Amino acid sequence: MKKGLIIVYTGSGKGKTTAALGLALRSLGHNHNVCMVQFIKGSWHYGEMTSANLLKPRFELIAGGRGFVGIIDDNKPVVEHKQIAQQTINICKKKMLSKKYNTIILDEINYAVNINLIKLDDVIDIIKLKPFEQNLVLTGNYARSEIIELADLVTEMKEIKHPFKKGIKAKEGIDF
Amino acid sequence: MKKGLIIVYTGSGKGKTTAALGLALRSLGHNHNVCMVQFIKGSWHYGEMTSANLLKPRFELIAGGRGFVGIIDDNKPVVEHKQIAQQTINICKKKMLSKKYNTIILDEINYAVNINLIKLDDVIDIIKLKPFEQNLVLTGNYARSEIIELADLVTEMKEIKHPFKKGIKAKEGIDF
Repeated sequence: MKKGLIIVYTGSGKGKTTAALGLALRSLGHNHNVCMVQFIKGSWHYGEMTSANLLKPRFELIAGGRGFVGIIDDNKPVVEHKQIAQQTINICKKKMLSKKYNTIILDEINYAVNINLIKLDDVIDIIKLKPFEQNLVLTGNYARSEIIELADLVTEMKEIKHPFKKGIKAKEGIDF
Repeated sequence: MKKGLIIVYTGSGKGKTTAALGLALRSLGHNHNVCMVQFIKGSWHYGEMTSANLLKPRFELIAGGRGFVGIIDDNKPVVEHKQIAQQTINICKKKMLSKKYNTIILDEINYAVNINLIKLDDVIDIIKLKPFEQNLVLTGNYARSEIIELADLVTEMKEIKHPFKKGIKAKEGIDF
């Protein structure tokens, strides 16, 4: 019985959620079951939602968020985002404890802590719930040092060059 | 008609090929066609090979390498690796110019330059061949500054914590 890893993808550069998606894809290639729970992304269309359908039933994608908080036409009160985030935490715990999945991805959970949608202690509780063999991936910028301390593998995606700064708009298939 | 991006994932941290796979998955969610050509990985089994089969026919994965050079039981002369790499370059060019693919991923091409399997000029030639709308992703550590100069988006995957250093072995679904 192999110990599952705790993996953190953080940093300001692009490629965090993308790497988690790639890890999901690779994992599925070994007949694993994978569940990705997204803390920020909500119901608007983006590529991985359709891709997830291509990989059913072993890949489950749950868009638990309600979109970006405070930006992109967000007119919901913060309290609503927080309530939703609590529900998303409960979904994570249920999914983890079901032991159905080899790998669980908590997308943007580090960022959700950073903007005070959820508490650091909530995340530490989740990490402690991890079944022995399960891999747990936590993405999002500003990962707290307490989370990095608990992780086995941490990569900082460091921004070297970003197309938005050159005036290039978000592109489908790359950014969403 | 939108200009395709040139994207580089480099650095010593884990998540470069993984992010490229995630980008492929996301892109497929928009009904794009994606081709990934691998410069190092060869014929031994790894997760993305099986995953690629799940995503056929719009995802094509070509393992052009003959395994890691000089390590993991490699007993092939370097000249053989170099010949194979030249063939892989020709495959890339053919795939790019076919214009069948929205996104082309050249996996470990930066690293292939670094270990002198291919020349920097070969990569620059490939980049210049890129059709206007096509996205081109170049992965691998030690991306040369000339390549970074030509790119629109560059992320350095920086190693913060690596499980191998804690004595944890490579794990299926995560490392391969």
